[in-house]
Amino acid sequence: METSQFIEETLPILQEKIDDVLAQNKAQTPSILQESMAYSLNTGGKRIRPMLLLATLKALGQNITQGFMTAIALEYIHTYSLIHDDLPAMDNDDYRRGKLTNHKAFDEATAILAGDALLTDSFALIGKDSLITNAEVKLDLINKLADAAGSKGMIAGQIGDVQAEGKEIDLLEMKEIHKNKTGELLHYAIYAGYQIANPSAEIKALLDEFAWTYGIAYQVQNDLQEVMWSDDDRGKFQHSDAALTKNTYPSILGTNGAIEALFANTTKCRTLLQQIKDIDESFDDQLLAGFLTFLKI
Amino acid sequence: METSQFIEETLPILQEKIDDVLAQNKAQTPSILQESMAYSLNTGGKRIRPMLLLATLKALGQNITQGFMTAIALEYIHTYSLIHDDLPAMDNDDYRRGKLTNHKAFDEATAILAGDALLTDSFALIGKDSLITNAEVKLDLINKLADAAGSKGMIAGQIGDVQAEGKEIDLLEMKEIHKNKTGELLHYAIYAGYQIANPSAEIKALLDEFAWTYGIAYQVQNDLQEVMWSDDDRGKFQHSDAALTKNTYPSILGTNGAIEALFANTTKCRTLLQQIKDIDESFDDQLLAGFLTFLKI
Repeated sequence: METSQFIEETLPILQEKIDDVLAQNKAQTPSILQESMAYSLNTGGKRIRPMLLLATLKALGQNITQGFMTAIALEYIHTYSLIHDDLPAMDNDDYRRGKLTNHKAFDEATAILAGDALLTDSFALIGKDSLITNAEVKLDLINKLADAAGSKGMIAGQIGDVQAEGKEIDLLEMKEIHKNKTGELLHYAIYAGYQIANPSAEIKALLDEFAWTYGIAYQVQNDLQEVMWSDDDRGKFQHSDAALTKNTYPSILGTNGAIEALFANTTKCRTLLQQIKDIDESFDDQLLAGFLTFLKI
Repeated sequence: METSQFIEETLPILQEKIDDVLAQNKAQTPSILQESMAYSLNTGGKRIRPMLLLATLKALGQNITQGFMTAIALEYIHTYSLIHDDLPAMDNDDYRRGKLTNHKAFDEATAILAGDALLTDSFALIGKDSLITNAEVKLDLINKLADAAGSKGMIAGQIGDVQAEGKEIDLLEMKEIHKNKTGELLHYAIYAGYQIANPSAEIKALLDEFAWTYGIAYQVQNDLQEVMWSDDDRGKFQHSDAALTKNTYPSILGTNGAIEALFANTTKCRTLLQQIKDIDESFDDQLLAGFLTFLKI
């Protein structure tokens, strides 16, 4: 299946379910808290993590219905991390994707609490999901999400990122920070997809490697965009300060080195998908390969 | 069993297990994040929530071992809520229990992230608990904890508290705010205890009522202490400003009215415990009754 068609068909269903989930708590949640949560959940992100989760299920020949609640939980966690990351004490950003950040649209107290609420509620979304009937599978999805997002996962990466600012670190250290900061949740998307679908251990292992490799490629491309976009638009490195003090792939490998790293990782991703296809002909490798085209620079 | 003896024996075991849990993630967690989490976990609180959970198990004739991970998860959640509550954008407190608050001992970014980490990690503590073997029970403990702490529980209460500041609200509105803000986690302590012990539905219902009633009594006593302590110590209402603008039981009912409310609720608690004892002679009502003596003013 074409990835663009899959996303086009699936995004409105996901949005409807997000709206449903938010509406369910309406009676018991102060309206300002609801509005603040909904505001950041609907800031126009690409929903790449939930889409990756659902596409993994689909590529493995499964009905995507049973993936929606976990996909929304993942989007909740991603959204909370952006709200807290934007706070004055953290990155101090006033805008995200052209809209006011949560603490600017509301206030700091509300933003902190809306982030806390999205994080907390996410676990019950999986725990109460009636479409996944196996309790052990749900527990595994909860445990892995907490690990991916918690003190040895995403939050370790955010602390590492703050600590490394302005310092020179080597490629290995940066890889570790980025594995935690962005890699863990991207990995979880694919992990959750294959745990719900439950293919052979061999295919799980290959998808696992695909997930980590995709995460690296995603981060390299993200870093490159900061350099290249401004380069194209204005003939100068608009974000070069950020790129330099923040320890990015281009700042450590150089722009060409980073482009090579991006190419090497997307190539490895394609090889892994082909290996799965060789094991199971019915595997829709093209659906996942389409997510690599998002990493064009 | 004497409550004081139970606590004296159980607190060191709980502390040891908290230290173990923190040490487990040592290799994968940045040390500053670990220190910040441990700092607030070990600020010398009374650990009333985990103790209440374990005492409920014990009162129902169960081994308390299987309650420890849930008790620690609950203490993680309580601790995160204090860290975030103390932040400059929230209550802006520099001290808690005579020690610097987390964002003063570390910095604001670290405090936000340490709170996030405690909140996130708590769910995996329950999810991975090998001493509770029934997956459905663990899912229920996770779901209920997320509900008690999330957008329709504790966080709803915190938003309500912020919104009510400086406004006049009536007794019903204040009860609702306090039910969410402090009642939900106290209720959860007893809920988790009886769900793990699994007595008859009749006893569960009585313990449930005990839990909500205890939560009200706890909050009334808390509010009264702010007024009475300063009264005794200095001959004036040291915290009367806070007590008045913050909508407390004494500010709405008057000090005498609040004392009467405290008495009525602790009496109701004792009656409920006696009712359980009447159903099941082996129920250790005295162990839970001991927690009422903490509510002396």
